[in-house]
Amino acid sequence: MSAYGSLTEQVAQISDILNAISILTWDARTQMPPGGAETRGQQIATLSSLAHERLTGDPLSDALVSAEGEVSAEDTVRLRVVQSVREAVDLFGRIPPTLTAELAGLKTVSQGVWQEARRQADFSLFAPYLERMVALNRQLAEAIGYTEHPYDALLLQYEPGMTASNLQGLFGDLKAGVLPLLEAVRASSTEPRWDFLTRDFPEEKQRAFNLHLAEGFGYDLSRGRLDTSAHPFEISFTRQDVRITTRYDRRYLPMSLFGTLHEVGHALYEQGVAPELTRTALTSDFLGLYAVGGASYGTHESQSRLWENLVGRSRTFWRRHFSELQGTFPEQLGDVDAETFYRAVNRVSPSLIRVEADEVTYNLHIMLRAELELALLEGTLKVSDLPEAWNAKYEEYLGLTPPDAATGVLQDIHWSAGLFGSFPTYTVGNVMASQFFGAATLQVPGLTGALAEGDYAPLRAWLTEHIYRHGRTYLPQELLEHATGEKLNVAPYLTYLNEKYGDLYGL
Amino acid sequence: MSAYGSLTEQVAQISDILNAISILTWDARTQMPPGGAETRGQQIATLSSLAHERLTGDPLSDALVSAEGEVSAEDTVRLRVVQSVREAVDLFGRIPPTLTAELAGLKTVSQGVWQEARRQADFSLFAPYLERMVALNRQLAEAIGYTEHPYDALLLQYEPGMTASNLQGLFGDLKAGVLPLLEAVRASSTEPRWDFLTRDFPEEKQRAFNLHLAEGFGYDLSRGRLDTSAHPFEISFTRQDVRITTRYDRRYLPMSLFGTLHEVGHALYEQGVAPELTRTALTSDFLGLYAVGGASYGTHESQSRLWENLVGRSRTFWRRHFSELQGTFPEQLGDVDAETFYRAVNRVSPSLIRVEADEVTYNLHIMLRAELELALLEGTLKVSDLPEAWNAKYEEYLGLTPPDAATGVLQDIHWSAGLFGSFPTYTVGNVMASQFFGAATLQVPGLTGALAEGDYAPLRAWLTEHIYRHGRTYLPQELLEHATGEKLNVAPYLTYLNEKYGDLYGL
Repeated sequence: MSAYGSLTEQVAQISDILNAISILTWDARTQMPPGGAETRGQQIATLSSLAHERLTGDPLSDALVSAEGEVSAEDTVRLRVVQSVREAVDLFGRIPPTLTAELAGLKTVSQGVWQEARRQADFSLFAPYLERMVALNRQLAEAIGYTEHPYDALLLQYEPGMTASNLQGLFGDLKAGVLPLLEAVRASSTEPRWDFLTRDFPEEKQRAFNLHLAEGFGYDLSRGRLDTSAHPFEISFTRQDVRITTRYDRRYLPMSLFGTLHEVGHALYEQGVAPELTRTALTSDFLGLYAVGGASYGTHESQSRLWENLVGRSRTFWRRHFSELQGTFPEQLGDVDAETFYRAVNRVSPSLIRVEADEVTYNLHIMLRAELELALLEGTLKVSDLPEAWNAKYEEYLGLTPPDAATGVLQDIHWSAGLFGSFPTYTVGNVMASQFFGAATLQVPGLTGALAEGDYAPLRAWLTEHIYRHGRTYLPQELLEHATGEKLNVAPYLTYLNEKYGDLYGL
Repeated sequence: MSAYGSLTEQVAQISDILNAISILTWDARTQMPPGGAETRGQQIATLSSLAHERLTGDPLSDALVSAEGEVSAEDTVRLRVVQSVREAVDLFGRIPPTLTAELAGLKTVSQGVWQEARRQADFSLFAPYLERMVALNRQLAEAIGYTEHPYDALLLQYEPGMTASNLQGLFGDLKAGVLPLLEAVRASSTEPRWDFLTRDFPEEKQRAFNLHLAEGFGYDLSRGRLDTSAHPFEISFTRQDVRITTRYDRRYLPMSLFGTLHEVGHALYEQGVAPELTRTALTSDFLGLYAVGGASYGTHESQSRLWENLVGRSRTFWRRHFSELQGTFPEQLGDVDAETFYRAVNRVSPSLIRVEADEVTYNLHIMLRAELELALLEGTLKVSDLPEAWNAKYEEYLGLTPPDAATGVLQDIHWSAGLFGSFPTYTVGNVMASQFFGAATLQVPGLTGALAEGDYAPLRAWLTEHIYRHGRTYLPQELLEHATGEKLNVAPYLTYLNEKYGDLYGL
């Protein structure tokens, strides 16, 4: 066997372990009886340590060195495979095992503490754990290494190529566009009707309609399924088995509807990865010990946002599909028309809760979190001052003050789970989504007409060709440039927001 | 850390891998979309090879040698742990890895071929694979080693301590009792009414009633769940998560009802293993690479049969529970009383299909299979002559001749899955069940009264104390002798059958 063959065989086994971890995780969130939690944690920890051991062990390292001598510079795919394993091995080599173990232990405990603190709305319970988490993430950043800012090292885990400096530019441009738009919307006398969204929508009918839309988008149920969980997610165990979950509110139709379309966007990405990348280094996030086919968190989010918002919340979409929805819920929506429904599901309403935010305010929630975690990491903000800083930013950006820590600084799981540097990827995803959608509209003849007819195949084909099939072959910025000819650029997104909400609110 | 500590830590990790395999298997049979089959097979194969590698590797072997020198003869539990790891390591050491690999490969292919052969009712398609399977199992027996008969080596995998010679004695006694009983039943003029079992029983109501009985038996749903699958099974991922499945026939109530009670019996065993045995060598079947808390296949089957038949098909049981069933299905069972129902679900009717057999004929199906596989292994029966031999035995024991290979020699998956030596454990389980139930009745004051009142706690407590909590601490025959004071003995089972069916058929 060639060295490259030995390398890919070892990587395939590591990939199997990462996929198995995902299956255990999916089961834990959707099927597992409560008694199984503790032993499930042990099972996942064991598989993670096995994957880590294989990634950092001599057999892989030996095969890698030999493969590096063997693969020619012209063989770009093999070269990328070898490079990507090399990056992971070197990166792992720089992180002390004691730090990895301490972080893993802290994550487990701190998520439980965070849950309890949120239940009691008492930040002081969580504060010491957050302090430790910040300190360990600072150590992690030092171990990984960076040129400009420690945050750059953490971003590497979620959005390779992105830096704190880039982000600050992006955020500045975005705020400069969004804050005036929000002010104008607030000053507008337009108030869309939305009472009908809170009527009684039986769960089974919601589910059937969501699945109908999902299949229309091209979600292949012979390689997927839809379940219910407390927090919606998408997860894949190779492209052949890509699952999504949603949650239902009988009294609030948009919850499951747009939640499902969001997860379908993630799922289309994973189902669209080229078959030959299955079980390779180009569908594995080694650093996160996670089997994923998408290029980065931001690229993945660009697809969930594209299908949820640019497609699913468009006027075009509801002109085509509202009559089907009305047919499913004739009593609940008998007095509503497509335009009224479109306006209702795009109502702008600043709120304290990120996951319920509309398109205009969503990125403000993200940017303030990113700014706060960056300051925590720099040490310019102390954990004890975080609640006050949180509230001040909510007042500044959204004009709202949280009544307590549960709806304020304790609302997200991310920091308790050690995810420092992941928040910005939501905004990066929104920005990318507009760039991708714009490029597809320019490049695919008749795309707008196809979407108006509910034909999603041309859009999906373009996305598959330019994004999905490549898996992690390209860095996110390379992928974006190949597909759109441009670097990350906030202009198309701001144009989209201004045109859509200018129209909706008569600005 | 002590050598014993290092050994148990390594074993705990192997146990986690085996539990993860079980989760992947459960998911594949109950949740997985069809597209996931191939990559799931790769994931399971990788985890199996990881477990095998750890079991046969130097770190475990070194810790084992040191632990053997460290554990004192008085420390019986630790001694048993060390012995059981030693047995597994030595056994694995005797089986050439090439044979393990060839068997694994053949099993995968041959199950697919068997399915197709059964679909076409054409034994000749399957014959070459079965020939190879017999040959490899003969090699496996030689590798494992035996004193008297190669079949003894294969039995070791499923029923340690059992031998071909013991089995022949057991089968002889059993046939001497069952065949005259069956003849008498057939000659009897009694013909129980059972038309009402085939009325229309909606699945959801069946499920709710089955769950009600399962919880009554003591199945803890905070550590378990009931799903649907093509072939019912029980599977556990430690005692904290023990799941069962069943299948429903809307037009045949007993299918899911007794199927569920059967799997509940298996599940009570696993849920009843002592917590301190979790992730130890005493809840792992290393040779089968399977995490299981029961002492053997036969011991496990004794519990499914005990709860399904000795409890669930008893007159006492239906006197207590029939009114509940009637309340669930008032229209379907309005014209039926408890005694009529009891008689219907115990109707003796020789059939060609093992899984549908009644208590009187069931073991005849098993014995003829065991006799045939033993002859195949000895070489006294050629694979090409198997269909004829099969049909001859069905005629001899049950007075029936299969119309084709699908309802004949191709009906069970076992041989295509390489399970030579597992069939006898079904009969061993039936025999043990009567011995255990008899001992409980003698030893627990008021047990009969409690059962009549639908109080299953005293029976479950006795079984937990004498069987469940011990996991794999004792060999099956030791466990049986400790609990009942007797060796494996067919007499109580024959007495049970003769009394029950003598009464039912007025013999």
